[in-house]
Amino acid sequence: MVQRMFISNAAQLVTMAGHTAPATKEAMSILNVIENGAVWIEDGIIVEVGTDEGLRETYKDQIEHATVIDATGKTVTPGLIDPHTHLVHAGTRENEYAMRLQGRTYMDIMEAGGGIHATTRATQQATHEALYDQSLQRLHTFLLHGVTTVEAKSGYGLTLEHELKQLEVAKQLQEDHPIDIVSTFMGAHAVPFEDKDNPEAFVDRVIHEMLPEVAEKKLATFNDVFCERGVFTPEQSKRILEAGKQYGLTPKIHADEIEPYAGAELAAEVGAISADHLLKASDKGIQAMSEAGVMGVLLPGTAFFLMAEYAQARKMIDAGVAIALSTDANPGSSPTISLPFIMNLGCLNMKMTPEEVLTATTLNAAYAIGVADKVGSLEPGKQGDITIFDVPNYLTLSYQYGMNHVDTVVKAGQQVVIGGQLQ
Amino acid sequence: MVQRMFISNAAQLVTMAGHTAPATKEAMSILNVIENGAVWIEDGIIVEVGTDEGLRETYKDQIEHATVIDATGKTVTPGLIDPHTHLVHAGTRENEYAMRLQGRTYMDIMEAGGGIHATTRATQQATHEALYDQSLQRLHTFLLHGVTTVEAKSGYGLTLEHELKQLEVAKQLQEDHPIDIVSTFMGAHAVPFEDKDNPEAFVDRVIHEMLPEVAEKKLATFNDVFCERGVFTPEQSKRILEAGKQYGLTPKIHADEIEPYAGAELAAEVGAISADHLLKASDKGIQAMSEAGVMGVLLPGTAFFLMAEYAQARKMIDAGVAIALSTDANPGSSPTISLPFIMNLGCLNMKMTPEEVLTATTLNAAYAIGVADKVGSLEPGKQGDITIFDVPNYLTLSYQYGMNHVDTVVKAGQQVVIGGQLQ
Ligand SMILES: [Zn+2]
Ligand SMILES: [Zn+2]
Repeated sequence: MVQRMFISNAAQLVTMAGHTAPATKEAMSILNVIENGAVWIEDGIIVEVGTDEGLRETYKDQIEHATVIDATGKTVTPGLIDPHTHLVHAGTRENEYAMRLQGRTYMDIMEAGGGIHATTRATQQATHEALYDQSLQRLHTFLLHGVTTVEAKSGYGLTLEHELKQLEVAKQLQEDHPIDIVSTFMGAHAVPFEDKDNPEAFVDRVIHEMLPEVAEKKLATFNDVFCERGVFTPEQSKRILEAGKQYGLTPKIHADEIEPYAGAELAAEVGAISADHLLKASDKGIQAMSEAGVMGVLLPGTAFFLMAEYAQARKMIDAGVAIALSTDANPGSSPTISLPFIMNLGCLNMKMTPEEVLTATTLNAAYAIGVADKVGSLEPGKQGDITIFDVPNYLTLSYQYGMNHVDTVVKAGQQVVIGGQLQ
Repeated sequence: MVQRMFISNAAQLVTMAGHTAPATKEAMSILNVIENGAVWIEDGIIVEVGTDEGLRETYKDQIEHATVIDATGKTVTPGLIDPHTHLVHAGTRENEYAMRLQGRTYMDIMEAGGGIHATTRATQQATHEALYDQSLQRLHTFLLHGVTTVEAKSGYGLTLEHELKQLEVAKQLQEDHPIDIVSTFMGAHAVPFEDKDNPEAFVDRVIHEMLPEVAEKKLATFNDVFCERGVFTPEQSKRILEAGKQYGLTPKIHADEIEPYAGAELAAEVGAISADHLLKASDKGIQAMSEAGVMGVLLPGTAFFLMAEYAQARKMIDAGVAIALSTDANPGSSPTISLPFIMNLGCLNMKMTPEEVLTATTLNAAYAIGVADKVGSLEPGKQGDITIFDVPNYLTLSYQYGMNHVDTVVKAGQQVVIGGQLQ
């Protein structure tokens, strides 16, 4: 029997329809909004998108067999997509917060064996089950904030065994939880504390021990590197990313977060799908990304939480780089799970418009993790992933800041959040 | 029959106990936290605060007759207090948001008859019932964000009739809704558009028409003025505040928001209970406030939303000014209702510590609106106003930023929010 769902009478239905590539420049403002809009879904797939009046006429004989969601007075968008998270990890690091408020920097704390090393120890020590349980709670929270697809990186294991553990937890969560998870291998997230004096040996292990095994087990789509002074050099990063390509893993880069380090340039050179962070990306790097079609995934929560300068979103958009936004959810530099709040930061601290931030968390976010054929817009043939906000128009998502307006979340045609509560 | 409530086994119980005046300097960091803490409440009044073990022993014969709230793993604080809101108003202004993102300033928009004038028109045109309904929804949202007491200002009426309407709506809400409302008359919120060329005539109406009537009807505790270039001069502000004192209304001031305008100095001179905003307060003004014991109510959401510089919280705290934090909830310059998010801004954008922002939204906020004898800390004899956050320690409220962690809210010994849902 066909499972039918009718999303009815949205005050604004933000479809993001009609784009055939990541949106750049003015295209980032094209939301294709339908007032009094409606969506018809069958077996989890969108069949038609249009006006409430039109769809009620077309499906008049079937509506009584459909689950009807009344979106009167509400704003409906594609399910939000978070294209950069460190979902699977153990523990929290609120203790470092006080240190930073007293003037210690993130790099200070890390070099002293805290920071990422603390999370690495906790993640290595955690059982598969403990990691699974903690990450599952985070997925619930993502769902409550309107997110229906997330990317998830490894990189707190740093040994073959523990990197595989992280990726296997992500795989199991993908099977068990409504949110779709796209996995990224990030063995090169940090040089392990004990390899501090011989990073090349660790790079070799990433390339010769970890990558083949991750690829063999089909545990990841992307291969990511933290290219930053004191972490991995552009040369090491390039070796790792090129090696990943041999195994069919598409490159991503944590680039130019703390200082200009030619990470954006490297992303263009190796044909990365995205370069992420980019707080200190050079003009040359931005231009190279634009020419090579590398997307920019900006993480303003990290700048907010580390009290740093923000990425130059406007300059990148003007240069023709397609921008996506993400939480960077992680226990050290961005411990939030609210993508709606990241949209607020996009507007208020990076001067993006309400239209651009919506594009950056739906359509462009889908492209940034290679799933735009399936999600990121509300169009026939795409998956019925839909977020309904209890606001009368999309502008209000940016206007009533600092609040979670998610009312209902539909994943592949199933209601998974109703009235702000998990089902 | 006695109504008993037992809040049991909080991972951290932030009592704020032991203060006998607004907390300044180092005292702003004294939270008096009890690990595995508990609270015993009878008929809405706190009877005892201590360890779970201790209270279970003392009340062992009565626990079976009590409503028991298990706070295991959670953080319990005094109900949050928002000491500066424009709760009662009609309409929203998300349309101005796009204008501002294109570079128009708040004062630009206001001088063109938009801004506050738009809200004034909407509020004047709204019936008592319409105003009541919209404001009631906002109170529900405050409650969901852990707030149990709010100050509420008039100032969108600007005529005797409509200022009274706003204050009467606040009075009715105070009777009908669990949140306690402290009312402030703010007839001098703006010079009406039609009085632009003769502001003195309007000042006279505030003093001779409105103030006597507001006082006679006992509709307000405080008298507030927007002292800013282009709005009310320090001289006009002083006349209005001194006149209010004759009617028993304690002065408050919207001071030095857009430029240094000697508002802080005026607050000290007239003996205001607080000066609010203070983004551009002069060193001299800060010193004068400290000496006169005027509190500073900081509204970092307004700086965030208007993309302005933040108030110099650290300088004020160092100077001995007692600081409170507030949303400034209003449709123009701060359309948020999340005081927990304001705490995040306090830390990350004003460099306050997690301890200071908690003091600033409980104990000091209570002092800033004259209700510290009744609320603002968890001590015997105070009202059982309590917020329970689903985080293991108070640091996490600042650490997991941009999210609403409120789980349960108790108002005068009644559960009004459970599991993040209104009861
Ligand atoms: Zn990251
Ligand atoms: Zn105000």
